[in-house]
Amino acid sequence: MQVNDEQAREVEEARLQLQSTHRPTVPAIEEILHEPIPVLDHGFIRVIDYMGDDAAVVQAARVSYGRGTRRRSEDAALISYLMRHWHSTPFEMCEIKFHVKLPIFVARQWVRHRTANINEYSARYSVLDAEFYVPDPMHLAGQSSTNRQGRATVLGQSEADAVLRLLQEDAARNYDHYGWMLNDGTAGHAVDQDRIGLSRELARIGLGLNTYTQWYWKCDLHNLFRFLRLRADPHAQYEIRAYAEQMLSIVERWVPLSYAAFIEHQMEAATFSASALKAIKLLLAGRSLEEASAGVPKREWGELCSLLGLDER
Amino acid sequence: MQVNDEQAREVEEARLQLQSTHRPTVPAIEEILHEPIPVLDHGFIRVIDYMGDDAAVVQAARVSYGRGTRRRSEDAALISYLMRHWHSTPFEMCEIKFHVKLPIFVARQWVRHRTANINEYSARYSVLDAEFYVPDPMHLAGQSSTNRQGRATVLGQSEADAVLRLLQEDAARNYDHYGWMLNDGTAGHAVDQDRIGLSRELARIGLGLNTYTQWYWKCDLHNLFRFLRLRADPHAQYEIRAYAEQMLSIVERWVPLSYAAFIEHQMEAATFSASALKAIKLLLAGRSLEEASAGVPKREWGELCSLLGLDER
Amino acid sequence: MQVNDEQAREVEEARLQLQSTHRPTVPAIEEILHEPIPVLDHGFIRVIDYMGDDAAVVQAARVSYGRGTRRRSEDAALISYLMRHWHSTPFEMCEIKFHVKLPIFVARQWVRHRTANINEYSARYSVLDAEFYVPDPMHLAGQSSTNRQGRATVLGQSEADAVLRLLQEDAARNYDHYGWMLNDGTAGHAVDQDRIGLSRELARIGLGLNTYTQWYWKCDLHNLFRFLRLRADPHAQYEIRAYAEQMLSIVERWVPLSYAAFIEHQMEAATFSASALKAIKLLLAGRSLEEASAGVPKREWGELCSLLGLDER
Amino acid sequence: MQVNDEQAREVEEARLQLQSTHRPTVPAIEEILHEPIPVLDHGFIRVIDYMGDDAAVVQAARVSYGRGTRRRSEDAALISYLMRHWHSTPFEMCEIKFHVKLPIFVARQWVRHRTANINEYSARYSVLDAEFYVPDPMHLAGQSSTNRQGRATVLGQSEADAVLRLLQEDAARNYDHYGWMLNDGTAGHAVDQDRIGLSRELARIGLGLNTYTQWYWKCDLHNLFRFLRLRADPHAQYEIRAYAEQMLSIVERWVPLSYAAFIEHQMEAATFSASALKAIKLLLAGRSLEEASAGVPKREWGELCSLLGLDER
Repeated sequence: MQVNDEQAREVEEARLQLQSTHRPTVPAIEEILHEPIPVLDHGFIRVIDYMGDDAAVVQAARVSYGRGTRRRSEDAALISYLMRHWHSTPFEMCEIKFHVKLPIFVARQWVRHRTANINEYSARYSVLDAEFYVPDPMHLAGQSSTNRQGRATVLGQSEADAVLRLLQEDAARNYDHYGWMLNDGTAGHAVDQDRIGLSRELARIGLGLNTYTQWYWKCDLHNLFRFLRLRADPHAQYEIRAYAEQMLSIVERWVPLSYAAFIEHQMEAATFSASALKAIKLLLAGRSLEEASAGVPKREWGELCSLLGLDER
Repeated sequence: MQVNDEQAREVEEARLQLQSTHRPTVPAIEEILHEPIPVLDHGFIRVIDYMGDDAAVVQAARVSYGRGTRRRSEDAALISYLMRHWHSTPFEMCEIKFHVKLPIFVARQWVRHRTANINEYSARYSVLDAEFYVPDPMHLAGQSSTNRQGRATVLGQSEADAVLRLLQEDAARNYDHYGWMLNDGTAGHAVDQDRIGLSRELARIGLGLNTYTQWYWKCDLHNLFRFLRLRADPHAQYEIRAYAEQMLSIVERWVPLSYAAFIEHQMEAATFSASALKAIKLLLAGRSLEEASAGVPKREWGELCSLLGLDER
Repeated sequence: MQVNDEQAREVEEARLQLQSTHRPTVPAIEEILHEPIPVLDHGFIRVIDYMGDDAAVVQAARVSYGRGTRRRSEDAALISYLMRHWHSTPFEMCEIKFHVKLPIFVARQWVRHRTANINEYSARYSVLDAEFYVPDPMHLAGQSSTNRQGRATVLGQSEADAVLRLLQEDAARNYDHYGWMLNDGTAGHAVDQDRIGLSRELARIGLGLNTYTQWYWKCDLHNLFRFLRLRADPHAQYEIRAYAEQMLSIVERWVPLSYAAFIEHQMEAATFSASALKAIKLLLAGRSLEEASAGVPKREWGELCSLLGLDER
Repeated sequence: MQVNDEQAREVEEARLQLQSTHRPTVPAIEEILHEPIPVLDHGFIRVIDYMGDDAAVVQAARVSYGRGTRRRSEDAALISYLMRHWHSTPFEMCEIKFHVKLPIFVARQWVRHRTANINEYSARYSVLDAEFYVPDPMHLAGQSSTNRQGRATVLGQSEADAVLRLLQEDAARNYDHYGWMLNDGTAGHAVDQDRIGLSRELARIGLGLNTYTQWYWKCDLHNLFRFLRLRADPHAQYEIRAYAEQMLSIVERWVPLSYAAFIEHQMEAATFSASALKAIKLLLAGRSLEEASAGVPKREWGELCSLLGLDER
């Protein structure tokens, strides 16, 4: 369950607030403001606040007195130019704030993006809920033999069942022990007056990495793009990618021109090394694949062929 | 002159835009949104956008689903607690964006605050206006003999006149030469078809450090407080302090509870070293100033006496 | 066990390398370079490399051509002055690199210090060792009733035994399941040819937060002081404090003058709010505790009394 | 003149210090340690200190107990892999510290790279030397008409002479006025006892942007590469590029494998947008330039043709 009834009521109240402002406002993002968008089995991501829009990128790039925008096509061309030439500072002029509920092992990857602001729920201060990420069987995959960090074949049903049972039982048992150690009337245990409860900061150390936590996370658009470039990539672990993909949709609503430029010049772009460039020139000059591949390391050549639709042999 | 007619018209247009939003909104800051507030002889600072309010600090500290606020006194107490105990991350959840026109030597001090976003007007790309900071005679002070970075006695009228004339003449002459070198019909010079104009990126290198530049500057509330702690301090150079003081007023409008906590626990607070603490304890135990001062370096003792209203001798 | 035999041999080899350099060198830190210093039950911290010394702080503050140092007392006075007046940039000119083995829940607090460089052991890429933090009974304390984030009374022996048994059994069982799921011949399980092994990035999600991880962590001296100010503080969780305390000793060896200034002006210093300052002035002017306390919030007054050795009632 | 006699003596003394260390040491960089390398007419860059080497990148990537290196070819392949896949954190494990003397307008571009540490010579605290950058005539170029930020044709001799005379005269005159205003016996003026001297922080505001300043600048290798990628690029202003090019040579000495990977995968690599990739595929499938260019914006197509050696028409 993503949010309980009381939380849903709080969200609803926040959504009902409506005020007038002289700030740039984006109707498409106002539509979904505050609403939890489900991710994984118990997680969510929701937009809490935002600053700026596509025009704010243009305005900063031009250091304008007013809104700074011209015709939409001119603005789009400027944004595309900025993205293509790594002019990162205008994109830093937009900011977005999320409330995210996510498994701890995902949070551990996420937090490595340092240029962002975080307030995380404190398990020293409060008691964690009994919520754990257990993968959908379709995501239970074996270790890739070609990519040391990746997944390959999906597990068969009986093995998947065994894995899920272990994950569920371990999570439930550890949470039960957490409650017993706390001994403060939370986490499913009545208070036993004959025992002191263990401090929260210690009782939680046996909980699994799939326990859900939550945080407020705020980031500027440039650094959000850097996050998405790495975390919406197929090489990212599926579980963080699930969040990144929702964030891509949110960014598309919020700043459609910047989003388009990002897809064009980063997500679906490719960088070729000096050697790869030489190989492409040879190919365009009519040389054979064999000749062209000579100066390119084998693995890089494979990636190049796959990108350009060439037959690798 | 802070803004010209066209700029004033653009500002006015931005102010006229009014839209509805589900975001936290602060009427007191909406009132002054976009308006240039004059600073120094030609500079200004104006708020372009903001994200969050006092409640956003509370909301992040509590990782709330809704707005997260309780009674105003409880929120104020929480904010004060956070400020007093250096819990910086909740204050990072508010963000503000300024458009600032400022002399280059002020910009050089300002830019040292790294955790902020900047888009500066580019003198490689565009031609600078003929605007230079020349101090008001009341700020023309001699070198302090006790503080190697500070000012002391204000100059007498005839010396002040001489200084101002030099500054004005040098600025005017150098700008005239800038226009001559550019030779592109700007900066007060008609185009001379018999000469190539020097590139903008080179022509500007002879301009003085008091030339005005401008930028968009965006910062979160925690890092803004760090900026203000240093730049609104009496030891800061007067010219950057003039901006910092306007920013303090803006922050007071925007987040009054956070502002009050900042004044109480940072601007008007004092830190005492281990030795100073021992001295205070001795004084409270009835020991003489002489006894108490024994373990404190002379200069620090002087500061302590001045802070606590003691007679230093 | 902190390091196994092969690791000890690698450390020994690194220690045996000796070369000559024109760089500033600190004999007291060379003595312990590379050596693992035990922390907690299986963790360690060891210095891998360092840049600069006390003289490098002085050199940068003076922007010197040579080493920039004068008499030791003058250097000490300058460093003390810089620390007292928050001149942070000269301290940024020293850098230190650690290799740390630490429980994941400690790593999660540590990583929140963003101005540092980290390379962490990847459990997507490699298999984790069977090492978990289990507290020493003397650190098994109940929840503090006055501090929502703290510990109070140490648990009695029978309750402590029960807690330790739960933590040990859960850790062992979850690790055993990790090995079973991996099915790759590691983590204590032989390969079962009839099953695909689960990918490493998924198999680890059920492991507890007390599992040990390790990383390279590099930080400049100014930001290290900020880390230590928070993490060597009695309010920090004991387990991260155990690392911070070892780091304090290391810093003392490395940059003794900067260390002394840090202890004097930060660790053992105290900041008084505007209201607290007024109260101290009243006390020094001979007013009663009752009169003085009137303007200070109750909890802050308590802290002030405890700092100044006053009787709070 | 880059350094005066006294400064040269201080440099020499620093070079004479030789100590033994267990740290990784790079003989090729030790050779040039402390030595000022001339840049522009009065500037220099010199390496003050460094931490790590190519092996330190490998060691951090492998989170090794010892030095972590294997055969040189394996290390090179790993470093190349890390660079190609944007694994930035291992490169952050190396650090370098420079002392740089540079014109203020160059410093203003340089300082925009925020992830670095700086201590700049303070003109509030000390008096600036009479040194100004005046370009060599071969770098006095007109404004580019195709690139709003660039230079084009070099000025003819008579125009160049006029420009240089203006720059020199303005610099000399403003510095003379600086000395007059200071009235403290420095900057070429004897003290006039009948006048107070203007404070240093004010007297300097009329000096030109081509006045030389100096600073200590410290940066990790990853962020240094980002700096170099932008500032050694032909689109960077010539004057900062002159420093970047010296830094490239220094990096090549220091970390030759990382340097080679940087050149291969960044400096001489190229990124193609989604549309450009489609166009290249069409060309490789034998389609005409006309057909291929249809989906690519004109300016980007021009760049693509120039990169791939195609005839744009």
